[in-house]
Amino acid sequence: MANPSLLILPGDGIGPEVMQEVRRVITWFSEKRGLAFDITEDLVGGAAYDAHGTPLHDDTMAKALDVDAVLLGAVGGPKYDNLDFSVKPERGLLRLRKEMDLFSNLRPAQCFDALADFSSLKTELVSGLDIMIVRELTSGVYFGEPRGIFEEGNERVGINTQRYTESEIDRVARSAFELARRRSGKVCSMEKANVMESGILWREVVQKVHDEDYPDVELSHMYADNGAMQLVRAPKQFDVILTDNLFGDILSDCAAMLTGSLGMLPSASLGAPNADGRPKALYEPVHGSAPDITGQGKANPIACILSFAMALRYSFDQGDEATRLETAIEKVLADGARTADLMGEAGGTPISTTQMSDAILSAL
Amino acid sequence: MANPSLLILPGDGIGPEVMQEVRRVITWFSEKRGLAFDITEDLVGGAAYDAHGTPLHDDTMAKALDVDAVLLGAVGGPKYDNLDFSVKPERGLLRLRKEMDLFSNLRPAQCFDALADFSSLKTELVSGLDIMIVRELTSGVYFGEPRGIFEEGNERVGINTQRYTESEIDRVARSAFELARRRSGKVCSMEKANVMESGILWREVVQKVHDEDYPDVELSHMYADNGAMQLVRAPKQFDVILTDNLFGDILSDCAAMLTGSLGMLPSASLGAPNADGRPKALYEPVHGSAPDITGQGKANPIACILSFAMALRYSFDQGDEATRLETAIEKVLADGARTADLMGEAGGTPISTTQMSDAILSAL
Ligand SMILES: CC(C)[C@H](C(=O)O)[C@@H](O)C(=O)O
Ligand SMILES: CC(C)[C@H](C(=O)O)[C@@H](O)C(=O)O
Repeated sequence: MANPSLLILPGDGIGPEVMQEVRRVITWFSEKRGLAFDITEDLVGGAAYDAHGTPLHDDTMAKALDVDAVLLGAVGGPKYDNLDFSVKPERGLLRLRKEMDLFSNLRPAQCFDALADFSSLKTELVSGLDIMIVRELTSGVYFGEPRGIFEEGNERVGINTQRYTESEIDRVARSAFELARRRSGKVCSMEKANVMESGILWREVVQKVHDEDYPDVELSHMYADNGAMQLVRAPKQFDVILTDNLFGDILSDCAAMLTGSLGMLPSASLGAPNADGRPKALYEPVHGSAPDITGQGKANPIACILSFAMALRYSFDQGDEATRLETAIEKVLADGARTADLMGEAGGTPISTTQMSDAILSAL
Repeated sequence: MANPSLLILPGDGIGPEVMQEVRRVITWFSEKRGLAFDITEDLVGGAAYDAHGTPLHDDTMAKALDVDAVLLGAVGGPKYDNLDFSVKPERGLLRLRKEMDLFSNLRPAQCFDALADFSSLKTELVSGLDIMIVRELTSGVYFGEPRGIFEEGNERVGINTQRYTESEIDRVARSAFELARRRSGKVCSMEKANVMESGILWREVVQKVHDEDYPDVELSHMYADNGAMQLVRAPKQFDVILTDNLFGDILSDCAAMLTGSLGMLPSASLGAPNADGRPKALYEPVHGSAPDITGQGKANPIACILSFAMALRYSFDQGDEATRLETAIEKVLADGARTADLMGEAGGTPISTTQMSDAILSAL
């Protein structure tokens, strides 16, 4: 049988640095645990633009559609800030999401015990925090038409369209309910149904999917502005949060920052299951390309390594191996290994990107 | 000369309770400081729906357009949750904002010294916090057309339109820059220009207004998701935040909650200056109608009283009197007066809505 296939797209900024450490971890799993992967590597974002004048080459897109999972580092950087909208690094990532039809973006906001003090929130409010945000990723205002900047009378007008069909809402709602069943059985769905008709349809469809097929899951609805407040006030009230593309962008970043563990958070973007039962999938850290620390060996590789752990779990049916990796990381943190982002006020000397993965490899 | 005129719209939930205390404060100012107002009172939101079958009667709309300032309590409540979208309580408020053309919504996120401990953030991160969010309030996805739920093929689709013209961006940007000049001279503008063309136009126009007319103000741009993160991470980096209607809704609630002083925060919604130089204006607390504590004498009247202080300052040129009122409130808090929302873990017996304004009146 062929090995499972993995496309690695390191991207920009600290992307290549952290991905290099992930490759060492992958090698460990193939040598020590017999998990061999067919790996190809390619360009995305600014790196692809520099090479090909486009943030995602058609060949790369074709490869992404062909493999079992994509692992992405990060895209973007100041160098590309003034590029035309259509070739900005972000367009490469958005094209991957859209053409792979990765409608369900799982973003855990988890507070690591050893790091609870790093949160800007009071420790007791976040210690043990474990939220999963399910963000719709292929529709809404990110992709709706019409869009653009148009002439109107004597001036220009900027237009984007928020747009959700019933089936788009239905499928992402199902993925949230499925996930909730494997967690605490609780989903809170967020929109602005008091102001937006697309929010009304969202609420209605989520409720219908719930009533028809997931009545065992506890479902609540909340306006997104209140959701932002409640995340800050008492994040532990939440388990699974289901929301749309734009609200999900903001709320998941807010939730991620609450944990104090931003350099630690992975994400998975999943599509519909293929014939073999595996979903199309892309895994990437929640943090960005961090141009301010690029090339200095300061980046924390853990978010990207944990993204690979998510790949083991969701794409390769290797839940036990994923747990093995996660446990090793917890141990390393408990032992006091800290990259620069994890130093806090106590001070001390941070270890480098490579030293962090050295530590993880020894713990494995 | 005629007295300045004030339309009071208590609205729903705790709105009438807190507004009753504001009226006592207004009476104090007219008796002791010679500030007489012509006051009319009317219905908005669910209260108006109950009386007239509409969340804002045309007569009330006409009055609002006629007076010097509107003071609003809160709208909404579970009783009205299943009403048709077009007659929901919120539509009354949104109609006021739109027809009064109140494009600039000022939302201070201020942490009161006596209350810094109530924040879920670590005290040192929020003590002394004083952010002003300037939210565009009459356009964007709240009002853009087309909107609605439509049939498409075999299913329904929910659509809203994000839409900003250059002049809409221009005028709210000016109001943010003007405000910044009277504060620390710093504006951070937030959008998603990496994903939305309307955000590109937003960024471009804000930059142009800055370069042409406010080069003395320090301007930065930030993606709204990063904005949410930075608000949680280190809110004191901000002074004035300028953003659109929907991002402003979420980011201002997030910022408000950071302060721990939600029951304390007022807001002003301002339009273009009239012939007499006064802007059309509506003042309201940031908190909602709080159905869970309605009718129990538990509500904190301070946010609504401070909204009246903003009216004194922005509509009635009575900055000194506004400061007098604000100082009295600070004193009362420093002396330990606490409504139920301000009790925290230390415990003790909270005072009632009326006792809080008693205390404020004696401090005056
Ligand atoms: C890079 C950008 C296009 C992206 C988004 O807005 O979705 C990012 O913020 C994210 O959340 O993954
Ligand atoms: C009540 C609702 C319509 C309103 C809004 O979404 O603008 C509220 O959340 C606010 O922020 O004033």
